[in-house]
Amino acid sequence: MSATDLNHLSASAIAQKIAAGEATAVAVVEACLTRIEARENVLKAWAFIDPDLALEQAYASDRLDTDGPLHGVPIGVKDIIDTADMPTAMGSPIYADRRPATDAACVALARAAGAIVLGKTVTTEFAGSFPGPTTNPYDATRSPGGSSSGSAAAVADYMVPTAFGTQTGSSILRPSSYCGVIGYKPTFGTYNIAGIKAASQSLDTLGLHVRDMDDIPLFTSMLVNRPLTPLEAPASAPAIGVCRTPLWDIALPETQAAVEDAAARLTQAGAVLRDVTAPPSFDDLEDARIAINCYERSRHMQYEWREHRDALSDMFQTVMQTGLDMDYDHYIAAMRQTEDCRVQADALFDGIDALLTPCVDGEAPEGLAYSGNPRLPGLWTAIRLPAISLPTHTGPNGMPVGIQLVGRYRDDDRLLAVAKWVLQKLGSPTLG
Amino acid sequence: MSATDLNHLSASAIAQKIAAGEATAVAVVEACLTRIEARENVLKAWAFIDPDLALEQAYASDRLDTDGPLHGVPIGVKDIIDTADMPTAMGSPIYADRRPATDAACVALARAAGAIVLGKTVTTEFAGSFPGPTTNPYDATRSPGGSSSGSAAAVADYMVPTAFGTQTGSSILRPSSYCGVIGYKPTFGTYNIAGIKAASQSLDTLGLHVRDMDDIPLFTSMLVNRPLTPLEAPASAPAIGVCRTPLWDIALPETQAAVEDAAARLTQAGAVLRDVTAPPSFDDLEDARIAINCYERSRHMQYEWREHRDALSDMFQTVMQTGLDMDYDHYIAAMRQTEDCRVQADALFDGIDALLTPCVDGEAPEGLAYSGNPRLPGLWTAIRLPAISLPTHTGPNGMPVGIQLVGRYRDDDRLLAVAKWVLQKLGSPTLG
Repeated sequence: MSATDLNHLSASAIAQKIAAGEATAVAVVEACLTRIEARENVLKAWAFIDPDLALEQAYASDRLDTDGPLHGVPIGVKDIIDTADMPTAMGSPIYADRRPATDAACVALARAAGAIVLGKTVTTEFAGSFPGPTTNPYDATRSPGGSSSGSAAAVADYMVPTAFGTQTGSSILRPSSYCGVIGYKPTFGTYNIAGIKAASQSLDTLGLHVRDMDDIPLFTSMLVNRPLTPLEAPASAPAIGVCRTPLWDIALPETQAAVEDAAARLTQAGAVLRDVTAPPSFDDLEDARIAINCYERSRHMQYEWREHRDALSDMFQTVMQTGLDMDYDHYIAAMRQTEDCRVQADALFDGIDALLTPCVDGEAPEGLAYSGNPRLPGLWTAIRLPAISLPTHTGPNGMPVGIQLVGRYRDDDRLLAVAKWVLQKLGSPTLG
Repeated sequence: MSATDLNHLSASAIAQKIAAGEATAVAVVEACLTRIEARENVLKAWAFIDPDLALEQAYASDRLDTDGPLHGVPIGVKDIIDTADMPTAMGSPIYADRRPATDAACVALARAAGAIVLGKTVTTEFAGSFPGPTTNPYDATRSPGGSSSGSAAAVADYMVPTAFGTQTGSSILRPSSYCGVIGYKPTFGTYNIAGIKAASQSLDTLGLHVRDMDDIPLFTSMLVNRPLTPLEAPASAPAIGVCRTPLWDIALPETQAAVEDAAARLTQAGAVLRDVTAPPSFDDLEDARIAINCYERSRHMQYEWREHRDALSDMFQTVMQTGLDMDYDHYIAAMRQTEDCRVQADALFDGIDALLTPCVDGEAPEGLAYSGNPRLPGLWTAIRLPAISLPTHTGPNGMPVGIQLVGRYRDDDRLLAVAKWVLQKLGSPTLG
């Protein structure tokens, strides 16, 4: 393998190579930087990248003799996540020059494990709907999705093996699906979110964009402090519930086809597939999630609203105003609904290892002004379940289309094992 | 009333006087500053106070013709809560010079409602156990409690009518009890905590120190966006459950006596009192809370741990190390226990309007090195219920001893109404 291919490796493979003395952190970072230099003028995935700073970390890493599980592994960090040595602008001109006093918890933990922060990836404005400059790696005239636009695009484009993203509605799974990578949103609360700009505290979840399933347990073990056990597909074929959800009709034909095709092929592969129907309380669950999002936004962004309103996009101001106009009882009713739905959703997993469900609307939208519909993943974010998108299909324009698997509350291990099995059986289409 | 008595008024009374043109914000702030000048050298309640900056805000307030519900009302802000115009040092030398980029949500909302941030009140180190310099307003040789030490002491000492505090175990109720003020911890999640340094995300709750119950709905309506309805005691005598908890034995005689005396006098006053027994799962609930606290601390404080370990107190390092040594499964077991206890606790409120339960260990400890035992309020913090301490009793040394009332999850309104009734019946002892 030539040095320039190091950027095609997963985080796990890079860590192993470096530990075995078969690669250096400098060579890995150089490979990533070479790719970035070649592609960044089109992709625009990075809000901040300083090659010298990245290389400086890599040289320091190679001088250190440690056994950190991420020793020498470069990562991308969504630009709403604080870094003490790089700006954190949150996709807003308000904070263009902001340099945080500390690293966010996830960044400090990753650095403690030996990771190298390659740079900050583009986020939509405060992880909301207003897009950044990033383009889709498979068609620069299309959106990469949002809000973790740069993280998904950079991982898809082999600029970095893994990147942190966050999800309050669909902000990990949507760009992952549009860009053809794996997006993982753990059970709410699993990864610590201190030092991350809040969007909506009852929903915000830190997660990962990866190209290889094996990177997920590697990061989880480091972030939550549990032993690393390699991810293995279940010994026997899993039981999968097909849940089309009350939002089935907003799924475009390519997304509906991806679910049906996956169901058919997984049945052929030996899985037990069963249709499951979400309870009626799911019908307006996504409305409840959006209400929570707007209400909580309007509280915690009060400072920006008062001091920098003109610097907020119209799109953002509309969300704020919706939240400011909402009374507390409406918000609490929405919170109660999500809590009730979470309890009721547990029954969907009776005898079922994971749900197969539409991931996002369809292929990445044309143009960069609209970053796609958040509603399909939003359902599961609202009730705090772990979810993963797998890049298993393509649409009519040859663009990536993902499927979504959803696990039981706090049963991420089983979800990931099933996801590995599913990906082995379905494979990923060749893209680009 | 002379201008120098304005600092004795509640926030509600100040707001009314200013709205009626009977006082100016400048006169109110001057009264507070006069009190601070007289007493701060002993009390040491303020981490930062700049009289010119406070007066500047007051002059600006008097020039504005607004109808904000807190127009001209000075507030104290615990120094783990970000303020864009004042340092936020969090009780640690690490951040002695830190100036945040933004106001925390609660500060921005209070300012939007017209409040004047008088200054930053002393917190223990990162709202943990290691004390700050604050002394008890009724005996300078004794602790004010922690972690919201300065907020409770400043409100008790008539330096400011109300102050923000936060509670992860007992950090609002403990100092409130020791200092003889009312401490209110709402249901978890009620007041937005964006911009507040995390202690333990699953427990951290923003609340209030006040001298007058009526200030609580005033702040709530502003913070959560609901109409202000004046607090009224229930028309008929409430039903109160006396819950001595599995930790009854750690309550000192004065605290046990306060509960028994309150129960007897409230019965006489017409309330229906009934003993209720916490379920067996409460026996080690406080251990679970402490485990959650240590674990979450060890995640989100990783940056300070890596970069500034020597600047952390030994007490703090011990908490961090306990958390770092804890594996994820232990943490999740503790989380599950608190969730189970919350569900089980609901039955304690069958036919009961509020629980009467020990507030803290007893009178404020002598000396400043130990800020008291967090365990009694910690039980209720663990399960996210609303709680309030009322300054109804004194101990053998004439120091304040509070009682604690606990409400059903998200039924803060009923808790506050009962608390008003209870305080009317029991009254507050004359202190100092």
